[in-house]
Amino acid sequence: MKKHVLIIGAGGVANVVAHKCAQNNDVLGDIHVASRTLGKCEAIVASVVRKTALKTAGKLQAHALDATDLEATKALIERTGARIVINVGSAFLNMSVLSACIATGAAYIDTAIHEDPLKICETPPWYANYEWKRREECRQRKVTAILGAGFDPGVVNAYARLAFDEYFDRVDSIDIIDINAGCHGRYFATNFDPEINFREFTGQVWSWQDRRWVSNKMFEVGREWDLPVVGRQKAYLTGHDEVHSLSQILKVPNVRFWMGFGDHYINVFTVLKNLGLLSEQPIKTAEGVEVVPLKVVKAVLPDPSSLAPSYTGLTCIGDLIKGVKDGRECEVFIYNLADHREAFEDVGSQGISYTAGVPAAAAAMLIARGDWDVGEMTHVEELPPLPFLQLLDRMGLPSRIRQGKIDQELLDARSERLLTE
Amino acid sequence: MKKHVLIIGAGGVANVVAHKCAQNNDVLGDIHVASRTLGKCEAIVASVVRKTALKTAGKLQAHALDATDLEATKALIERTGARIVINVGSAFLNMSVLSACIATGAAYIDTAIHEDPLKICETPPWYANYEWKRREECRQRKVTAILGAGFDPGVVNAYARLAFDEYFDRVDSIDIIDINAGCHGRYFATNFDPEINFREFTGQVWSWQDRRWVSNKMFEVGREWDLPVVGRQKAYLTGHDEVHSLSQILKVPNVRFWMGFGDHYINVFTVLKNLGLLSEQPIKTAEGVEVVPLKVVKAVLPDPSSLAPSYTGLTCIGDLIKGVKDGRECEVFIYNLADHREAFEDVGSQGISYTAGVPAAAAAMLIARGDWDVGEMTHVEELPPLPFLQLLDRMGLPSRIRQGKIDQELLDARSERLLTE
Repeated sequence: MKKHVLIIGAGGVANVVAHKCAQNNDVLGDIHVASRTLGKCEAIVASVVRKTALKTAGKLQAHALDATDLEATKALIERTGARIVINVGSAFLNMSVLSACIATGAAYIDTAIHEDPLKICETPPWYANYEWKRREECRQRKVTAILGAGFDPGVVNAYARLAFDEYFDRVDSIDIIDINAGCHGRYFATNFDPEINFREFTGQVWSWQDRRWVSNKMFEVGREWDLPVVGRQKAYLTGHDEVHSLSQILKVPNVRFWMGFGDHYINVFTVLKNLGLLSEQPIKTAEGVEVVPLKVVKAVLPDPSSLAPSYTGLTCIGDLIKGVKDGRECEVFIYNLADHREAFEDVGSQGISYTAGVPAAAAAMLIARGDWDVGEMTHVEELPPLPFLQLLDRMGLPSRIRQGKIDQELLDARSERLLTE
Repeated sequence: MKKHVLIIGAGGVANVVAHKCAQNNDVLGDIHVASRTLGKCEAIVASVVRKTALKTAGKLQAHALDATDLEATKALIERTGARIVINVGSAFLNMSVLSACIATGAAYIDTAIHEDPLKICETPPWYANYEWKRREECRQRKVTAILGAGFDPGVVNAYARLAFDEYFDRVDSIDIIDINAGCHGRYFATNFDPEINFREFTGQVWSWQDRRWVSNKMFEVGREWDLPVVGRQKAYLTGHDEVHSLSQILKVPNVRFWMGFGDHYINVFTVLKNLGLLSEQPIKTAEGVEVVPLKVVKAVLPDPSSLAPSYTGLTCIGDLIKGVKDGRECEVFIYNLADHREAFEDVGSQGISYTAGVPAAAAAMLIARGDWDVGEMTHVEELPPLPFLQLLDRMGLPSRIRQGKIDQELLDARSERLLTE
């Protein structure tokens, strides 16, 4: 049984994690929030206090921490007595925070793969470039490190594992579909840091097809999907973390990730990219001011957190899984629908942050309860999915399942609550 | 008879004017080029020398001049002995350069209306805000000041006057249509300074309809025109200088200006404008760099002069004039077709600069010859059009005319060279 949580990061996802940990502090114990900017951590603490989110009286503290400083991170883990570290800071911090956990024996959770700021879309499988190099060390030190425990990666990996175990004798393909059918009411905005957002789409797209890595350009391969409640939605083949673990661990021949983009998003992105305004290389104006164009674009775009109060509509994220069961071809779609407004009412963040943060808090609870405290580096698809999905259902992210194929409308009518009733 | 020319400005249009004056220095005498940046004037001189453009041996000199400095401008006019000043510098300089001409008795020519840097799209008629306030003074001092002697305004004003005199008993409408059907081969570029280019389209659009000023938004009113050679082209009601003189001087009930824009230009413009990237107000990046977004956009866009060597295709600019002749309704379209590649071969600039610069040099020759040395402030539509159009035909901008109406293809076949044969 591990207790006491250190949350690293102070953005929208960290805010959600802090609220959800507070709502479950009878299980998790003390809660600490640490990031480079103390004020942002204090704002999260204040938000939790304002919502009176703490389930029982307990410790909730903000800390200033440069998480690239290994010694400082180790010291904070030891000083706070945290046995679980939830890393929802920048994607550039993972290896440093993981090292601190290995050194102190604390469990490690993150929601996104490690990135080198100077590289994009490296050689697949991505996890082999950084995380898996530490796998043996975790095993020897019996350190639990759950990689990619947000929604995607995270919950979608659990969906894949559930289908693999319960619904199929043979799985042929996993298509993860991520649709934000919400509306923020602005001309254009990104749902998280524009710099990180655009960075995801400027390189090549890796997918796993016929047991091989295939490279495409962004927005090169698009498909319209007919989904429950949100209806017909166009999504594009996109590179994403979970493709790089599911393909290797579940040995499925096809794993693809599809992200929904409206024509308007693609148009704005294309104009900015082609003009050179998404470049990370500094330019000089005629007046001699040196500036990175992408940072100017970031400065004129709305602050993503400012979108939350008026965000309406749903996200729909799920796995469309095809294969064979009892000799017959079949398919299931396992998914979640999250409502931006409900997310804001629950924790003060919009749905994109909510779907990423709630699962990380759930994973922490499963470590605290022992279910997932496996003493090694692991991906969500290697862990028992049911305790996770049952917990998420209670914490605000219920799973649904649609079985069958082809006749979508009929199937929609048969959609039912999974797991809990 | 006036002689010796001082060209103020050192951009693409100034380069064309310098080449054309050099090609006619037997009439014009000494040629001087002055702007704030001496190096740019020297580059123009070098370009003229490289093309051996001087018709006869003669003086060709570069000068540094801040043309907002009245005394310095007067002194340079006197020192060079220039009796004709061609102002093709920034639109913010007109009133200062005109003052220097009035003081020294030199003739004044410009190609675009005066602008206040802090204002856009002021109260119509625009000329009444600045230029016409000096009209009486020019008359008293017998100073020739020809306003708007580029292509549009300029040649299109002469076309209107020609139609008014020769083709109609009554003119009902003048629609000036400006199409650049050329191709620069870049994703996006403006044909002149992006800052000035975008500035033209961010305010309201004034047109003269039914003898009244009408205000529209940019890109609000569009129409497809079927034009000789360049074919069907979409153009939008746009504010432009000549509407503000033709409507008042020729007393025509309808004067409108239409500028051609492809959907691609409009899309890029709309994205940039809506994101706030065309703003002239400084913003601050997350790193604390203060910068004007429009100047960053300018810095990432191609330098307009860099487009010239590979620019292909034609511009088509003309007046579609409707009215009554001998009791019958009729229409004529008087126009020029300019070839970007031919312009580059002639003077090293692209067609947009060429069509603006050649007429200004022609106007200088008409002053030198006496035809247009009228000793007062005047617009091109107040001057005899034939000597101007005949000279332009010889200098690289031949005029054509299409008479009749409705059956465009038949009419295209009947198009013929105007005036010269």
